[in-house]
Amino acid sequence: MQLLHGHVSPGYENVLKLFESFLSADPGYSAQLAAVHEGTPVVDLTGGPDMGPDTLTGAYSCSKGVAAMVIALLVQDGALDLDRPVAHYWPEFGAHGKDRLKVREALSHQAGVPGIEGGFPVDGFTTPAAAARLAASPPLWRPGRQFGYHALTIGIIMEELCRRTSGSTLQELYEQRIRQPHRVDFFLGLPAALEPRYRDVLYADDDGQQWLDPLSLEGLNANSPVSGIMELPNIRTVRASGMSAAGGVGSAMGLARLYAAATTGVDDAPAFLAEDTIRLMSAEQVWGLDRSSGLDNAFAVVFMKPHPSRNFGSHRAFGHEGANAALGFADPAYSLGFGYIPRRAEEGRTAGRAHRLAAEIRRSAAALS
Amino acid sequence: MQLLHGHVSPGYENVLKLFESFLSADPGYSAQLAAVHEGTPVVDLTGGPDMGPDTLTGAYSCSKGVAAMVIALLVQDGALDLDRPVAHYWPEFGAHGKDRLKVREALSHQAGVPGIEGGFPVDGFTTPAAAARLAASPPLWRPGRQFGYHALTIGIIMEELCRRTSGSTLQELYEQRIRQPHRVDFFLGLPAALEPRYRDVLYADDDGQQWLDPLSLEGLNANSPVSGIMELPNIRTVRASGMSAAGGVGSAMGLARLYAAATTGVDDAPAFLAEDTIRLMSAEQVWGLDRSSGLDNAFAVVFMKPHPSRNFGSHRAFGHEGANAALGFADPAYSLGFGYIPRRAEEGRTAGRAHRLAAEIRRSAAALS
Amino acid sequence: MQLLHGHVSPGYENVLKLFESFLSADPGYSAQLAAVHEGTPVVDLTGGPDMGPDTLTGAYSCSKGVAAMVIALLVQDGALDLDRPVAHYWPEFGAHGKDRLKVREALSHQAGVPGIEGGFPVDGFTTPAAAARLAASPPLWRPGRQFGYHALTIGIIMEELCRRTSGSTLQELYEQRIRQPHRVDFFLGLPAALEPRYRDVLYADDDGQQWLDPLSLEGLNANSPVSGIMELPNIRTVRASGMSAAGGVGSAMGLARLYAAATTGVDDAPAFLAEDTIRLMSAEQVWGLDRSSGLDNAFAVVFMKPHPSRNFGSHRAFGHEGANAALGFADPAYSLGFGYIPRRAEEGRTAGRAHRLAAEIRRSAAALS
Repeated sequence: MQLLHGHVSPGYENVLKLFESFLSADPGYSAQLAAVHEGTPVVDLTGGPDMGPDTLTGAYSCSKGVAAMVIALLVQDGALDLDRPVAHYWPEFGAHGKDRLKVREALSHQAGVPGIEGGFPVDGFTTPAAAARLAASPPLWRPGRQFGYHALTIGIIMEELCRRTSGSTLQELYEQRIRQPHRVDFFLGLPAALEPRYRDVLYADDDGQQWLDPLSLEGLNANSPVSGIMELPNIRTVRASGMSAAGGVGSAMGLARLYAAATTGVDDAPAFLAEDTIRLMSAEQVWGLDRSSGLDNAFAVVFMKPHPSRNFGSHRAFGHEGANAALGFADPAYSLGFGYIPRRAEEGRTAGRAHRLAAEIRRSAAALS
Repeated sequence: MQLLHGHVSPGYENVLKLFESFLSADPGYSAQLAAVHEGTPVVDLTGGPDMGPDTLTGAYSCSKGVAAMVIALLVQDGALDLDRPVAHYWPEFGAHGKDRLKVREALSHQAGVPGIEGGFPVDGFTTPAAAARLAASPPLWRPGRQFGYHALTIGIIMEELCRRTSGSTLQELYEQRIRQPHRVDFFLGLPAALEPRYRDVLYADDDGQQWLDPLSLEGLNANSPVSGIMELPNIRTVRASGMSAAGGVGSAMGLARLYAAATTGVDDAPAFLAEDTIRLMSAEQVWGLDRSSGLDNAFAVVFMKPHPSRNFGSHRAFGHEGANAALGFADPAYSLGFGYIPRRAEEGRTAGRAHRLAAEIRRSAAALS
Repeated sequence: MQLLHGHVSPGYENVLKLFESFLSADPGYSAQLAAVHEGTPVVDLTGGPDMGPDTLTGAYSCSKGVAAMVIALLVQDGALDLDRPVAHYWPEFGAHGKDRLKVREALSHQAGVPGIEGGFPVDGFTTPAAAARLAASPPLWRPGRQFGYHALTIGIIMEELCRRTSGSTLQELYEQRIRQPHRVDFFLGLPAALEPRYRDVLYADDDGQQWLDPLSLEGLNANSPVSGIMELPNIRTVRASGMSAAGGVGSAMGLARLYAAATTGVDDAPAFLAEDTIRLMSAEQVWGLDRSSGLDNAFAVVFMKPHPSRNFGSHRAFGHEGANAALGFADPAYSLGFGYIPRRAEEGRTAGRAHRLAAEIRRSAAALS
């Protein structure tokens, strides 16, 4: 048995048992798992070598779900209308036939600009200059007619929409309106003072054995040849900038608490998103084969929706998975916020550990209610 | 060699050989296989333990194809127009943005109401109360914009459309206009007197090892937690009610004869469906990845169409498979009605025995003509 | 090591190494591989038994890409408008609801006429009579609403559009405007004098073990029962007629040179296609599950586009694969024309040798620029 910290509330013992079985089966396995039910932590577990409850590590595209909470607030404020064209807020984006693409389409991977030839410097994703380059790009498909994962550029779109509608950066709004007031242990822009808590994501490096064509759809998505997706959060400047597509770092409890704060409230505070906002943001926009990956995907506004290959929750759930199989989501049907972050990148989707743990947590919550 | 009843007409000897090879390979295998060519039975085989030519057992979603024959008659009568909104006939169904959904869309799994939170009582699917609950449901997706199998609720829609347009239940019309006049050995509502002929479908029970989230799309489809799909026909009240989605029971010859009666006629009677009706009912409405299952599917109005993963017939064929891999279809290109019902639930789709048998039967029919 | 002819330019040594590894691993393997970079041959290799640099063999659907070059010229000339209905040029084609189908839709497998019941005689695909039969056919789906590979009939459509807009056959225009002036060693209609250079494609014959229903979508596509796809180029009358869907024969250098002549120019001549024409012809029209095969596909106007299962090039690449895994394409992002033709039919798509060789060639070209 590996070192294991934390606790589970009564009724969640099977969650502990399942997590322990993963630890027993693989001595190299480390992870954090957290769930908040009706505002109260019910699962808070950390196990495996070199990882503690206080560890912060990269969660890749889970960051998109975190950043989308800022978009949700802008929608809730009335500052951003999902049915308006992106170009209404950001006229330059209308170039090359992208003028009628709606915000909810652009934020569900339908814009057709999953990357740019030449790529972006890794510390330049959060800048207005990056937004300007993206705005000037011709789309790879007719905007709004199909979807394909925009692994990094969806963050640029979120960030520029934020600047245009609020005058602040997405990272500033996240810090002021979400992270600090709700004491969320997940960062879009990790302060230098917290660097000692950071542990690099571990992942298998293929040593360039396989060439990724930087001008292929896959290469554009990966910002090749400038960067590899996997190294991003391990680069200090990236996690300092808090790029909203993949630069967030935090703990599993940070993710769980964020989703709970948004949908059920935590610490006796009300949910920071209204029912209507949740409904708008979690309504599925696209489903089917993803043009970028060839795999099935389902997206609401930024958030992933459960689908047969990502069975993370009820039909009301919404969240996001990361390239390391980290997972954060809210499931309003069970009043749950969920977070999972492994130290070593692993396989995600329905086959992965995160999905099995999420099912066990929902099963426990259902049995108790 | 297992016990084998029945006969094949000259030219169909290879069908017998293939069926026998299945029996030889698996001592636990039991099934009925039937085909009617130009109104005449050409294959009528039963083999394996504890199953006779007279056995009736569950055929699950093959029932949908049976019930769709009643819908076809209503279309043929002019009582039901596939291009009108469901709400034209059933105003309550228009709630929550379902008001413009056409009959042919609702009957090809595009309504977005594959289930209801809380589920339906298993003996309550055929009631107006079930229809009222379904009508009042918000769709899980924008109606008519995508499709996902409605494993049980498509039956509620068929049944209510029948009541609204004819004043009779679907089961009554099936009995009066189809089953009795054409002497079809397949029942939507098994009379108590025929219960001695019924044999339970055998299936592997996972003993709840895997939790099915009742609020997931898959769980809603399965009417979880009220029922498991597989037990349905084995419950007396379900097969007595003859729920049109999955409550039909019968023999393989019942299915073959039904499809033949509809498309070629049997016993010197003409086909009960006109060419035009067949064309309308068998025109493909949707094809692609099914939102409910993540697998590829193709549907006409209620009926399944052949597609690469369900290669059961020519491009003109239409029918339906059941969860136990039972299969019933008509193939007008070969003047065939086909039925197959295994006693033990098995794997369906193109990989399954039913599809190999169907190919052998079509090959024989083609060689003879 | 197998017999190996040819050369690679400096910087392309890894391409040679990879090709040699294929030859070493399989003594029965024969193939030609060619690449032209900025108009200059940089890879020209032939290896394996019974195949020389001068060998011509079948390339199946690579022929479609070759024929599409003629379509591109008609578009460039202003004789053919991709956005007009096919019926504008060919009124008979408008029968059975096909009247509004646009040229770019018909040429991206959306017409719904992937075959005809009864099939075409193998030497009758290039005739006006074949076009008349196809025009009179009802579509299997609503034209323009979905796509499914038209393995052979897309050639009939190309050829008739050519006759209607130019008065010449596609084969004549190809010969006069492309093959002769650019000295392309790939033939739509192999002259008898060159027959001695032809070597039959080798392929595994299943001896009719598996029955292909001639009236299934797959059977219609394969022109069953008249012909098997694989034997087509090995039939003298087929390769003499040069049917544009699958009757082209040539060498790998023929394909590479053709794509180079079209996009970069060869022998100091300018590219025969203008940037605008390339943009129109290579714009993706459809992507997703192909109704005919159930596999994912992506098509521009006739040409295949790279997608996750066919990763042959950058997002700007366009070309076509053949049933034997032959592959020809242009990748304007790398100023490359590429050709690959194996003697023995092998597996295509991303898993195949052609795709690995194409990646190595692009990698080399990228490193040199």
